[in-house]
Amino acid sequence: MHREIHILNGPNLNLLGKRQPEIYGHETLADVERRCRALLPEGTGLVLRQSNHEGQLVDWIQEARAAACGIVINPAAYTHTSVAILDALHAFEGPVIEVHISNVHKREAFRHHSYVSLRADGVIAGLGIEGYEAAVRRILSLTGAAG
Amino acid sequence: MHREIHILNGPNLNLLGKRQPEIYGHETLADVERRCRALLPEGTGLVLRQSNHEGQLVDWIQEARAAACGIVINPAAYTHTSVAILDALHAFEGPVIEVHISNVHKREAFRHHSYVSLRADGVIAGLGIEGYEAAVRRILSLTGAAG
Amino acid sequence: MHREIHILNGPNLNLLGKRQPEIYGHETLADVERRCRALLPEGTGLVLRQSNHEGQLVDWIQEARAAACGIVINPAAYTHTSVAILDALHAFEGPVIEVHISNVHKREAFRHHSYVSLRADGVIAGLGIEGYEAAVRRILSLTGAAG
Amino acid sequence: MHREIHILNGPNLNLLGKRQPEIYGHETLADVERRCRALLPEGTGLVLRQSNHEGQLVDWIQEARAAACGIVINPAAYTHTSVAILDALHAFEGPVIEVHISNVHKREAFRHHSYVSLRADGVIAGLGIEGYEAAVRRILSLTGAAG
Amino acid sequence: MHREIHILNGPNLNLLGKRQPEIYGHETLADVERRCRALLPEGTGLVLRQSNHEGQLVDWIQEARAAACGIVINPAAYTHTSVAILDALHAFEGPVIEVHISNVHKREAFRHHSYVSLRADGVIAGLGIEGYEAAVRRILSLTGAAG
Amino acid sequence: MHREIHILNGPNLNLLGKRQPEIYGHETLADVERRCRALLPEGTGLVLRQSNHEGQLVDWIQEARAAACGIVINPAAYTHTSVAILDALHAFEGPVIEVHISNVHKREAFRHHSYVSLRADGVIAGLGIEGYEAAVRRILSLTGAAG
Amino acid sequence: MHREIHILNGPNLNLLGKRQPEIYGHETLADVERRCRALLPEGTGLVLRQSNHEGQLVDWIQEARAAACGIVINPAAYTHTSVAILDALHAFEGPVIEVHISNVHKREAFRHHSYVSLRADGVIAGLGIEGYEAAVRRILSLTGAAG
Amino acid sequence: MHREIHILNGPNLNLLGKRQPEIYGHETLADVERRCRALLPEGTGLVLRQSNHEGQLVDWIQEARAAACGIVINPAAYTHTSVAILDALHAFEGPVIEVHISNVHKREAFRHHSYVSLRADGVIAGLGIEGYEAAVRRILSLTGAAG
Amino acid sequence: MHREIHILNGPNLNLLGKRQPEIYGHETLADVERRCRALLPEGTGLVLRQSNHEGQLVDWIQEARAAACGIVINPAAYTHTSVAILDALHAFEGPVIEVHISNVHKREAFRHHSYVSLRADGVIAGLGIEGYEAAVRRILSLTGAAG
Amino acid sequence: MHREIHILNGPNLNLLGKRQPEIYGHETLADVERRCRALLPEGTGLVLRQSNHEGQLVDWIQEARAAACGIVINPAAYTHTSVAILDALHAFEGPVIEVHISNVHKREAFRHHSYVSLRADGVIAGLGIEGYEAAVRRILSLTGAAG
Amino acid sequence: MHREIHILNGPNLNLLGKRQPEIYGHETLADVERRCRALLPEGTGLVLRQSNHEGQLVDWIQEARAAACGIVINPAAYTHTSVAILDALHAFEGPVIEVHISNVHKREAFRHHSYVSLRADGVIAGLGIEGYEAAVRRILSLTGAAG
Amino acid sequence: MHREIHILNGPNLNLLGKRQPEIYGHETLADVERRCRALLPEGTGLVLRQSNHEGQLVDWIQEARAAACGIVINPAAYTHTSVAILDALHAFEGPVIEVHISNVHKREAFRHHSYVSLRADGVIAGLGIEGYEAAVRRILSLTGAAG
Repeated sequence: MHREIHILNGPNLNLLGKRQPEIYGHETLADVERRCRALLPEGTGLVLRQSNHEGQLVDWIQEARAAACGIVINPAAYTHTSVAILDALHAFEGPVIEVHISNVHKREAFRHHSYVSLRADGVIAGLGIEGYEAAVRRILSLTGAAG
Repeated sequence: MHREIHILNGPNLNLLGKRQPEIYGHETLADVERRCRALLPEGTGLVLRQSNHEGQLVDWIQEARAAACGIVINPAAYTHTSVAILDALHAFEGPVIEVHISNVHKREAFRHHSYVSLRADGVIAGLGIEGYEAAVRRILSLTGAAG
Repeated sequence: MHREIHILNGPNLNLLGKRQPEIYGHETLADVERRCRALLPEGTGLVLRQSNHEGQLVDWIQEARAAACGIVINPAAYTHTSVAILDALHAFEGPVIEVHISNVHKREAFRHHSYVSLRADGVIAGLGIEGYEAAVRRILSLTGAAG
Repeated sequence: MHREIHILNGPNLNLLGKRQPEIYGHETLADVERRCRALLPEGTGLVLRQSNHEGQLVDWIQEARAAACGIVINPAAYTHTSVAILDALHAFEGPVIEVHISNVHKREAFRHHSYVSLRADGVIAGLGIEGYEAAVRRILSLTGAAG
Repeated sequence: MHREIHILNGPNLNLLGKRQPEIYGHETLADVERRCRALLPEGTGLVLRQSNHEGQLVDWIQEARAAACGIVINPAAYTHTSVAILDALHAFEGPVIEVHISNVHKREAFRHHSYVSLRADGVIAGLGIEGYEAAVRRILSLTGAAG
Repeated sequence: MHREIHILNGPNLNLLGKRQPEIYGHETLADVERRCRALLPEGTGLVLRQSNHEGQLVDWIQEARAAACGIVINPAAYTHTSVAILDALHAFEGPVIEVHISNVHKREAFRHHSYVSLRADGVIAGLGIEGYEAAVRRILSLTGAAG
Repeated sequence: MHREIHILNGPNLNLLGKRQPEIYGHETLADVERRCRALLPEGTGLVLRQSNHEGQLVDWIQEARAAACGIVINPAAYTHTSVAILDALHAFEGPVIEVHISNVHKREAFRHHSYVSLRADGVIAGLGIEGYEAAVRRILSLTGAAG
Repeated sequence: MHREIHILNGPNLNLLGKRQPEIYGHETLADVERRCRALLPEGTGLVLRQSNHEGQLVDWIQEARAAACGIVINPAAYTHTSVAILDALHAFEGPVIEVHISNVHKREAFRHHSYVSLRADGVIAGLGIEGYEAAVRRILSLTGAAG
Repeated sequence: MHREIHILNGPNLNLLGKRQPEIYGHETLADVERRCRALLPEGTGLVLRQSNHEGQLVDWIQEARAAACGIVINPAAYTHTSVAILDALHAFEGPVIEVHISNVHKREAFRHHSYVSLRADGVIAGLGIEGYEAAVRRILSLTGAAG
Repeated sequence: MHREIHILNGPNLNLLGKRQPEIYGHETLADVERRCRALLPEGTGLVLRQSNHEGQLVDWIQEARAAACGIVINPAAYTHTSVAILDALHAFEGPVIEVHISNVHKREAFRHHSYVSLRADGVIAGLGIEGYEAAVRRILSLTGAAG
Repeated sequence: MHREIHILNGPNLNLLGKRQPEIYGHETLADVERRCRALLPEGTGLVLRQSNHEGQLVDWIQEARAAACGIVINPAAYTHTSVAILDALHAFEGPVIEVHISNVHKREAFRHHSYVSLRADGVIAGLGIEGYEAAVRRILSLTGAAG
Repeated sequence: MHREIHILNGPNLNLLGKRQPEIYGHETLADVERRCRALLPEGTGLVLRQSNHEGQLVDWIQEARAAACGIVINPAAYTHTSVAILDALHAFEGPVIEVHISNVHKREAFRHHSYVSLRADGVIAGLGIEGYEAAVRRILSLTGAAG
């Protein structure tokens, strides 16, 4: 049976690899996609999307209800401000893993609070883009199909 | 050349697998050690320790300055109260990855703040004991020896 | 003369009746629309819209300035985070009634604050979808046309 | 079978219709009683009471345990200060609807918090005295006898 | 024409002169009444009342709407907790002077906030029972009849 | 010489044993009275009272000044809101023991603060109705007459 | 024996009577001085000063240590910001009465806190310039020379 | 060489000149554009855009990375709630001037905090639409081409 | 069958009876042990321990899991700072009674919060060393063996 | 007719151009004066003053009531601490523009709050000394004489 | 080469030795000067000044930029309220040592915060006037001339 | 008669001189001991200890009750978190001087609060290891034996 993991990315992550490489490195979302795909067993698909629009991310999470076995989400700035994304995730029944590339706890105080963490099953911060890989591994582990 | 990763565990983690298995599962720290050892390349050692004593954890972090290339730490209750552990970690120069078995952000408010996160390079919460594996992988990646 | 009431719904309300029926019941926004239409006197129209996008809701409130005699709004998650919706409502001159299906005051603390209440003439929470009916009745009463 | 709805009113509401009519209108509690009675089906009674005494309101809520199928309560100033009324309502098993004539969220900050909302099934604010009617309709709907 | 000043006293003030005389002195409410009466011009009456019941004080303030040209109130403990008294005073149209025998700002932090001050025209604290006299003088001055 | 202990109970405690027996047990205030009376030595009397009225409790504490050697008080909801009861207790010179049937510290945050504790000599919470017995024992011990 | 009362006025009070007469009236500091002087018994002098400089007010309070039997102070804006004035008053041994012309508790929140009240023996607010007279009367009463 | 200044406007600013002209005046965004264009030296272009959508504003800021030498932004309601706009601006390297038509510091407390100010080089509030002109002048000055 | 109650004491309690006897009395922990032992029925043992080390207390609570039917704990200073002790107690299944010799609520604000109370079944403060006796009585009552 | 603009500068601004030129540039207050004078139409004068004394600034603002058509003020450190300056500005009837050379919102948290902004008509921060010019332009625009 | 240390003293310190000798002792600022002078090596001068005026202290700190190798400052009440003094010290390049005669941390909460500490290199509190000597020693040590 | 000063050092201070020498210098605790010993008069001993264990520090403070005439303590991280050390110091009767090598007030906010300062007679921060010498001098001065 076919199965999909959805990796959703919030605002400004389309710039990944193009700005502040000393912090965020030179790899882009395309590299993230390639790395994660390499971890998947036969019969498991992967959808990676990015939007600067909060509403678009809510739409995509709703779509994932029918299509995905798990969600990996890097909500970026919306981590700290979006109750709408939190509520959409509450309506998703599979596992949700929240990823941040840098350790947000070392940054400004307003980045220490996450609405998404109130729903996420797991939270990963500061592992760089390897955090996405750890999240995918966890989804596979929880949904019983590590390939 | 020989290289070591130190996995340090805070108070009550010696009870892992023995209490509230519906939350924490049935695996113990010995299982954590076995799983993590399996990830290591040739020539990399692993030390796993647990203590209920804040001062003991500080002592061990200081020892790690000479002996370890990276620290994985699950500070448990001391996450939220120990400036001493934070200060000890500040004197350690290699990568530090903080691990929590459950998603602490879903629990009581006083568990949302971590002193250790102010120093950690990466933070992982809610991946169960797989969080230790993700942390070890990250240490290996950062210290250039994934085997 | 023709007259319209606009019922605007925020993020995730398109899932109404499809998730957590034990809390939200089995009726959908289509049912809300049918129920409210039944209350209208001759010559009064009704527009019911839903969006997950904050900006879309702002656009619709601006449109209502020319078209509607009153607004019923269930801002859902944007209740707590959107100053933009508040400001758009400030530019609308007719009555505004805010509706929440559940009693938000019994939920998490961050749901206790509403930007929209700073402008709304009335606020209804916890009456289930009957709250929409009470809101429409109030608009009719305030605009002098209970039919 | 006989059934009763109790409408309880807190301090200063005996002045309703007698002060600040530009805000509160010219109708009195007697008008509220008449309006609500008109909504009742055969076999349903209504008791409307007012007191300036917190303890008296607690006494009446306790009486309602035996006598009433639902409570409509406008706690007025005690909304914000009375844990005793909250506790009494916790001991009542039928539905409770909280009513405020004005939109308290637009007033001073200390009026934004309601102890009663922590127990109420529904909360209505800013519908004027029509709020009482909406509350009575909701009680009838929940107790299955809209007549 | 007859005119009255009402002096209302909150909980525990019936003990005035009987406890902690080193702080509150040896004079009682009867002495307060005698002192204040001595200041009144011909044709001005005085009513001094005390109650430990918040609701009773609200009742008396409402009575004062018809009977009194001004209110002197020492709300004692209810200063800090009673919104009901504040609301009752909002419905009184004449001048209101708040009196505290000791300087409440030097006591516990919770005594630094007064709901009554949000309505009072004047506030006097720490003048001992002479504060009542200053308050009566002010009422006389504001209502144009210093005798 | 005759001596009395006064046991004062706040709002809703008249329902003790009648609601939520899984939490509060099946014993009533009458049982509390019987149990405590059994602890008294010859020549010591006991008065147990309950009121939903804050002012009534203040009146009774004032009466206790002349009549009682010690006060056991379960202020229930007024624990958290009544400065008036605190002030009345400040005017009582004998020992005061505060009792709560459940452990209030495990409940909502607003129940963690007690005005009465600022005056009480001892505080007992979560011992069920045995807490009253422990309180009476302490009064007897402090007033030198354990019989 | 000669005796003096010092009336010290803070910033912008030199404008009294010249701005916002609808709030502050038309009387000036000269009128205050005249009114207060009229209350003095034989052998008691009065010094009234005003400065916009915090340091000047501190200097004058220090001078009052040798010269004055009591201080009446309207610290105006420095009420809320000056620890220096508080400390100077702590070094003055006679009675200190704090005066505010308007009821500062009805104004912006930052005007609700007074450093000076932490030292003052009495505080008077909202009595208009009659507050100065009440303050002088209190000084006379406390220093045993009402003339 | 061609050079552009981008003027970005947040939610509800499309209503400028159409609502509350007593506060915001009668001039519209078209007037703003005309006034600012008049300040530009030869070879400098200007793009003025408005959106009610947070995500759209983020998109435009990202576009400005390649196209603009400076950004003038009036984020309106998103000033106070958008971390996404802040993050987008962090990825823009030229000067950023934040403009508010009214003095936001005189309005509700939640309008006193600006996420955008944490990145802006300059902030202008309360100069009316002349604030846009001052901002454009500053961009020209900083980018060395005042024409 | 043999049964044990463990009485655990936190930092500085080894000084009991040796410092500030006017507050803490002259009895020592040895006296506490003797008094409590006198309350035990046949077949019930008692272990009383004291440590200045947080980790030692955690170790002992863990030991109590196998050995004790109930814990009486006076965490002293660790009451306010130790999440580790709270977590250890969460892993203990029998009843836990928290004891403080003085009424901590009358002391500095930082002593008003107790982590241990979040787990304790009962809390006793201000009964002097009689508090230990009341706690032991409660353990016996809850574990059904009052002897 | 003659007209004056007063530019008032708070503490340490006499050092402008002499310290931290990398932040504040090399221009001094004399340069500010010269630049601003260049913007003035015929018949408009300019007074630029600086003081380290809060009281001196209050004196000058009072003088400006008679002499100036508008005030430009850079209160420097007194921005955050002076209620006295705020009150003095409240007594000035013409336009007030507040200027800060750097963007204070990027500096320490205590610099984010401005008492002066509660009165200012416009606020300019982070435009360097060009901010003074923008402020003078605004005064000219508001007082109808751009020359 | 000649070298100077400036010792600056804030408000009310001119009363040192003259008030509350049980706290502050009997020695005056003249004694402080004498004691400190005794520590100086050949060729090092000392200037000791005191003012009640915040602006005067700012002036003196600015003078010290040219004249002093180090500043010892006891800002007294201005410690807690003066951003102006902080800013002046930021413009001084030599070492700054802050001195308080008593341990301010044991006094009222508002004395626990020091603006000056944000700039000071060292802070000494509670050593009595010996604190000045320790401060002078530190200046000498840091400027390499202990004589 | 023999006399001892105890210098107690908290966690991580054993690393002094070995890490971050640019901040903490190159001298170690052994150097501190040598420097302080040099200040002692004949017949005065010195004990310098360091531990990473909070409980160990409490034990040592208790030992000092019998052995030491004064305590110099650098509690390091425990400064901010240990009530146990505070309580132990409360049981010590001689002078206590708290030392911090760096100026903790310039560091993170959680380092600005010290439990130890609530008991210490003096507090020294930011004098480097000379702070220990100043502390020893003060102990000698207070215990009347500067040698």
